[in-house]
Amino acid sequence: MDLKNVGIKDIRFPVKIREKGGTRQDTVALITLQVNTPKQFCEDCVSTLLGLLGKYGDDISPPAFPALLKELKTELMADSAKLTMTFPYFIEKKAPVTKTAGLMEYTCSFTGTSENDDDLIMSMWVPTTTLCPCSKEISKYGAHNQRAEIRLDVKFSDFIWLEDLISMVESGASCEVFSLLKRPDEKYVTEKAYENPMFVEDAVRKVAGLASAHPSITWFSVGVESFESIHKHSAYAIVTSDTMGC
Amino acid sequence: MDLKNVGIKDIRFPVKIREKGGTRQDTVALITLQVNTPKQFCEDCVSTLLGLLGKYGDDISPPAFPALLKELKTELMADSAKLTMTFPYFIEKKAPVTKTAGLMEYTCSFTGTSENDDDLIMSMWVPTTTLCPCSKEISKYGAHNQRAEIRLDVKFSDFIWLEDLISMVESGASCEVFSLLKRPDEKYVTEKAYENPMFVEDAVRKVAGLASAHPSITWFSVGVESFESIHKHSAYAIVTSDTMGC
Amino acid sequence: MDLKNVGIKDIRFPVKIREKGGTRQDTVALITLQVNTPKQFCEDCVSTLLGLLGKYGDDISPPAFPALLKELKTELMADSAKLTMTFPYFIEKKAPVTKTAGLMEYTCSFTGTSENDDDLIMSMWVPTTTLCPCSKEISKYGAHNQRAEIRLDVKFSDFIWLEDLISMVESGASCEVFSLLKRPDEKYVTEKAYENPMFVEDAVRKVAGLASAHPSITWFSVGVESFESIHKHSAYAIVTSDTMGC
Amino acid sequence: MDLKNVGIKDIRFPVKIREKGGTRQDTVALITLQVNTPKQFCEDCVSTLLGLLGKYGDDISPPAFPALLKELKTELMADSAKLTMTFPYFIEKKAPVTKTAGLMEYTCSFTGTSENDDDLIMSMWVPTTTLCPCSKEISKYGAHNQRAEIRLDVKFSDFIWLEDLISMVESGASCEVFSLLKRPDEKYVTEKAYENPMFVEDAVRKVAGLASAHPSITWFSVGVESFESIHKHSAYAIVTSDTMGC
Repeated sequence: MDLKNVGIKDIRFPVKIREKGGTRQDTVALITLQVNTPKQFCEDCVSTLLGLLGKYGDDISPPAFPALLKELKTELMADSAKLTMTFPYFIEKKAPVTKTAGLMEYTCSFTGTSENDDDLIMSMWVPTTTLCPCSKEISKYGAHNQRAEIRLDVKFSDFIWLEDLISMVESGASCEVFSLLKRPDEKYVTEKAYENPMFVEDAVRKVAGLASAHPSITWFSVGVESFESIHKHSAYAIVTSDTMGC
Repeated sequence: MDLKNVGIKDIRFPVKIREKGGTRQDTVALITLQVNTPKQFCEDCVSTLLGLLGKYGDDISPPAFPALLKELKTELMADSAKLTMTFPYFIEKKAPVTKTAGLMEYTCSFTGTSENDDDLIMSMWVPTTTLCPCSKEISKYGAHNQRAEIRLDVKFSDFIWLEDLISMVESGASCEVFSLLKRPDEKYVTEKAYENPMFVEDAVRKVAGLASAHPSITWFSVGVESFESIHKHSAYAIVTSDTMGC
Repeated sequence: MDLKNVGIKDIRFPVKIREKGGTRQDTVALITLQVNTPKQFCEDCVSTLLGLLGKYGDDISPPAFPALLKELKTELMADSAKLTMTFPYFIEKKAPVTKTAGLMEYTCSFTGTSENDDDLIMSMWVPTTTLCPCSKEISKYGAHNQRAEIRLDVKFSDFIWLEDLISMVESGASCEVFSLLKRPDEKYVTEKAYENPMFVEDAVRKVAGLASAHPSITWFSVGVESFESIHKHSAYAIVTSDTMGC
Repeated sequence: MDLKNVGIKDIRFPVKIREKGGTRQDTVALITLQVNTPKQFCEDCVSTLLGLLGKYGDDISPPAFPALLKELKTELMADSAKLTMTFPYFIEKKAPVTKTAGLMEYTCSFTGTSENDDDLIMSMWVPTTTLCPCSKEISKYGAHNQRAEIRLDVKFSDFIWLEDLISMVESGASCEVFSLLKRPDEKYVTEKAYENPMFVEDAVRKVAGLASAHPSITWFSVGVESFESIHKHSAYAIVTSDTMGC
């Protein structure tokens, strides 16, 4: 029997991620590596991974990730390798009315599964607001709303910045979420969500529509989990480009 | 040096909890035990705990808990012992308008720290809704709202049912939460929350006021964490009866 | 666009699981349901699920699970449905030498994805011990060892009890784990692990071999995560019957 | 009723931590703030906190933390304030024999509760190995061992580097843990742990003894959780300088 996928799980390492603005952002990645290698696991995987993180870790980006993965495969004489880096990523965002700036945090990840550049999957978990259309329709005033997390995974033909994908996802919910809001901003987001009611399936459809229309996205998956304010459980919807009847 | 607090952490065991209605509810407890004992830790703690859970575990209640703890101390020849059982607890709750019944789940725990019966702490984590007064006041329509978890810890002179404490906590938020709501119920909870806006500190004050007025509660702590629908972070407030300027 | 997979996530419900011994075990399940349904999500999914859990929940078993899933699909007029129940499951286990009995807890789950009975996946997470062959070989005495969690997922043609699958998994590591061990038992498990050193990939291979040879298992996946005692990260290996070069 | 402790919970922010070597380390902090303030919670807390993190966040150290906290209190007109920052912290560590360097990650936190500098608590969670003395004594060969996490909290009169505290904690277990070990290193740590067996209470006693003897530590708490390799539960011990019968 030929064993696939030996590896290491949950090792943390400080990395720098290339930002759209041209600078690099310091963050901390949680890393998992799986390889199909004839080398002895006992020390080689960790040693090679840490060595290459030292070499590549201060300039991680979608173009650089496949190069790191390729060198990892070569050094480990592996038939295949899968590397995932998950990290908090910060984007300065301006409040919608007062334009007060604040850092928003998003969880993002890169997953590479071969040496083909287009196998790279970029993933992001984006907090948003959903407001229930049913609750709005039947109530004299108000409508229940809640934080909802949208997860997007994409493969792509041409490079796309995390900043642009996150912005696309944020436009798909009842309203986007901010770290810092002054009173005029809070009025704005409250009213915008009320004017824009969405079930989880509506948010999934909207983000999936945007992803389908994006010229560089070749595959995607969109999931929305809404932490219902009137229940203890979550509402959930998911779609992938494979199963869409487009 | 005299070592305090050797123990075992995170052992699961099936238990039955005495319900207000007279029956016993099957659930699964996560158990932590700390003791100050001269006995060898290597096997005695686990052996004694599992043995006594076998004896007491099928009828756990605030009156029975101190008896279990006392026997544990005696068998382990301990100067002191602290036992915590945390478990999901289910209560059948009727929707507010249609009276449709559904099981609601609450996390609850019992913590005993000595052989005095009144040292028992009952804790519960109760999901509720909070609706922001500021957002309501400044917006043309709507108001942001979200799930908020209220944690109540109490010591008591006379026995109180978990059911009654949970019901008291639920009355302290903008609206309570249900597992199952039909359309007329959803209209009711949406409107009730809108009519009853509360910051986290308002909810803390209301539950603290109810706890202060309760004739059997001798000490309490109330904390509210609101999973803000317009932010990624939580709003939080806490008060204990010790620090209240009553 | 035809949306797949709307659902509810993370709802808890008390259930009874059919045991090998003929009795039923009370536990608490964490439940996720995804359906492709034309019905309005707002209330129907939860209402139908809770109703059917009331009907089926007190006798959950691999044969009963598909019946529950089928009725769920029919009531929701769904093209497809996926239901997962994850629960702590307790088995009384005797210590290897003194035969002292103690309850061991395992996380288990059932996942059904269609109305075909053989699509049911049974999963279990089994704590075991792994002892490093490399460390044993190179050291004068001792060898590092640690808790390792083995996850097994199986599809099957003929019914298999969770008890039998768990027992099969436990035979695949350096040594199995117990809730309660007396001194002669502790001597036994220490020596057995030392006599039986295994890397994560060895444990995966052994369990995969047993699963391959089982007449009723038609598909499986085995993963082992070893919480290395000499590192902060885990060693990991995984194989599925699809990718095995058997 | 005068409400204490309104705040925000679980906001992430990139910070730089002052290192012993003179440089500053980029990491990401999880931040919780509680204040007793007459100001309106709705926006002021977050706005003030984010503003001051912008000012102080690129040079966080035990001396700078109280200054940040003091300015926070002043701006919020608060009677009291409590600020916690928890972050992964990396230290380059050399393997014991081959001296191969690798980055080790530790979770650390700073908690300030007033404007007095000596109220600052530094906390760290340090992975180590414990090897069971009982298992070693009764077995022909081998001894069960496992990863054990030691948590140390300290108050201090004179500044102490995180690097020095972590090194002190690591000397208190059966053996310390590394990110990268070559074969001669693995032989060393295996044998060292075997030569140095410790129950959780032994590790607690040893670290408590070192903390007691440290001239700058004015208060401490030490807890050890050992993820037993022969059980599913953890062994646990804890002591604080308050309760030690020294």
